[in-house]
Amino acid sequence: MKEKISDKVISRLTQYHCILVDYIKKKNYTITSSTIAQLLKIDDSQVRKDISMLNNTGKSRVGYDVNRLKETIEKTLGFKNPKNAFIIGAGNLGTALAKYNDFEAYGLNVMALFDVDKEKIGKKINSKPVFDIKELSEYTKKMNVEIGILTVPSDFAQEIANYAVKSKINYIWNFSPTVLDVPNGVEVWNENLMGNFLQFSYKISK
Amino acid sequence: MKEKISDKVISRLTQYHCILVDYIKKKNYTITSSTIAQLLKIDDSQVRKDISMLNNTGKSRVGYDVNRLKETIEKTLGFKNPKNAFIIGAGNLGTALAKYNDFEAYGLNVMALFDVDKEKIGKKINSKPVFDIKELSEYTKKMNVEIGILTVPSDFAQEIANYAVKSKINYIWNFSPTVLDVPNGVEVWNENLMGNFLQFSYKISK
Repeated sequence: MKEKISDKVISRLTQYHCILVDYIKKKNYTITSSTIAQLLKIDDSQVRKDISMLNNTGKSRVGYDVNRLKETIEKTLGFKNPKNAFIIGAGNLGTALAKYNDFEAYGLNVMALFDVDKEKIGKKINSKPVFDIKELSEYTKKMNVEIGILTVPSDFAQEIANYAVKSKINYIWNFSPTVLDVPNGVEVWNENLMGNFLQFSYKISK
Repeated sequence: MKEKISDKVISRLTQYHCILVDYIKKKNYTITSSTIAQLLKIDDSQVRKDISMLNNTGKSRVGYDVNRLKETIEKTLGFKNPKNAFIIGAGNLGTALAKYNDFEAYGLNVMALFDVDKEKIGKKINSKPVFDIKELSEYTKKMNVEIGILTVPSDFAQEIANYAVKSKINYIWNFSPTVLDVPNGVEVWNENLMGNFLQFSYKISK
């Protein structure tokens, strides 16, 4: 599969992956497209179409081979090329994300957290060290990290983002409900939680 | 505006809203579509098209009236019809969301949190009470709440979701990286964080 995968397909593939992981835990070896479709409340034909785009083998009359389909999705989405990241902001959200062990299974390694709070600096969260934000530049170099997961309060988000960019963080996964102004060449992915909620809310109010 | 708004447009409108809130804070009164476009690194024509779909007045030669555009977006997305919700799971993520004051500005009122942990029950987080999960059914009735924000560890997510559904939570905003199996009539919105990250990661690896 060489062509670009759309965001919607990527989103669905990760959900299929979730289901497969769960199926493997429960020692099921095959799954049908209609089971996946039913769990996600989407069309069976959509599931079949998505999977047919992958280089997946291991389909039989009784359904897809769960392990093989899982591996195919992982290969397609590049789970095997792990990426290192820092969490910037060791508050509740940063801590929650640092404890989110699924990240590693999906190829995202959180190497450390950064904060300004002297109470937090020097401690560990889920065995990841919390460093002083002043040392960010030093550690991006030392640990070869370019991805920053920004979980600071929105009032400081722009200031901290500027600082992160200066420290050579080139990719920001932004959890603050703020649109960041960054120089060209820096990529921001806004985790627009309220936007997501409003989509949900808009849907259920019909 | 009567027709259904697509998820992508809703997502962009909330980001425009973010920018407008920020502009108002900084005492700016007008904004151009190209400023918005540049901040979001999208096309100017896209911004103009989105805004032209709204019943927005207050456009002049120097740009959009910031306050009016903000209000128009709020009206379009139904911010003025606030919704009450419970957070189920008072761990780090639940606590972070309970402290997320922007929710209220967007019409989402978190009324209380629920947990099993005796240490947490009876306390308050951001002046919201933490109740025993056993009392969920009682409070959904008493407080007229139908939305549950599920922030429990993935291993318990299905079990707690079943319990929430039995307690008459009909809308679940699911933060656990698990696909929930719920009866018909119950709506789930999966906050697929890993999926979002993988979209980002897929994009930046090209």
